[in-house]
Amino acid sequence: MTVTIRPARREDVAAIVLMLADDALGAGRELIEDPVAPAYLRAFDEMATQTGNELLVAVHGDEVIGCLQLTIATGLSRRGMRRAILEGVRVSSKHRGRRVGEQLVLDAIARARAAGCGLVQLSSDASRVDARRFYERLGFKATHVGMKLSLEQ
Amino acid sequence: MTVTIRPARREDVAAIVLMLADDALGAGRELIEDPVAPAYLRAFDEMATQTGNELLVAVHGDEVIGCLQLTIATGLSRRGMRRAILEGVRVSSKHRGRRVGEQLVLDAIARARAAGCGLVQLSSDASRVDARRFYERLGFKATHVGMKLSLEQ
Repeated sequence: MTVTIRPARREDVAAIVLMLADDALGAGRELIEDPVAPAYLRAFDEMATQTGNELLVAVHGDEVIGCLQLTIATGLSRRGMRRAILEGVRVSSKHRGRRVGEQLVLDAIARARAAGCGLVQLSSDASRVDARRFYERLGFKATHVGMKLSLEQ
Repeated sequence: MTVTIRPARREDVAAIVLMLADDALGAGRELIEDPVAPAYLRAFDEMATQTGNELLVAVHGDEVIGCLQLTIATGLSRRGMRRAILEGVRVSSKHRGRRVGEQLVLDAIARARAAGCGLVQLSSDASRVDARRFYERLGFKATHVGMKLSLEQ
């Protein structure tokens, strides 16, 4: 399935939120309202002010069917390397298994490389066994433990 | 051991690089020169242009004895949440075991909370068993697999 990968626009936010919620782990974490809840539009606008923090979408025809967040940040370690971080990689459930996720992630890797990054990293919930296999096929190595501390009540 | 935690200054870069290299995994990855290799100063200057990407140092007297990188980025997932990412947490080998790392990480968590983050995350090399226990003591949960793809030759 051939898709176009491009930076997300404000009018894509509602479709992205539906994909974030259309997921075993994401379902309970998102707010589904029509029109889209203002918190998501505020977050989108805030991302636009943050250098190196962008949302990409996969588009088929007029439909947004995949998304991911690509954050690029420089650090001192590894000789002052730039690092890319992937978050929230999702494909609409009716288009899974058609390499949409692969095209999205490969596009993000190409953007990271073009931006001079030496590393792309992500963390995947340990229960997502298929996700781990998917990233391993793309060359990622599961060398790390991903740890999280919630600051929410 | 009481330390002051503050944002790093350009004149701290040499001390930070020594700490990054003073580590079982970091040793082969860094470039130790005197004066400090220009790549690190370039990276420091680049970080200063990136919103939400900062280096913190722990200072005792006049000496920089610990460092970490704190990156804050907004995303759409989890209702448009801001997320903090910790990288490159290091304490000078002669001051380890004196809660310097704990003070650094707690300070970064407080800064993340003050910036409205809902989550603090990091990935730790799976071989660093002590690091994992250290973060678990501070409340982090090892729920994820951390995956990396090198883009370097």
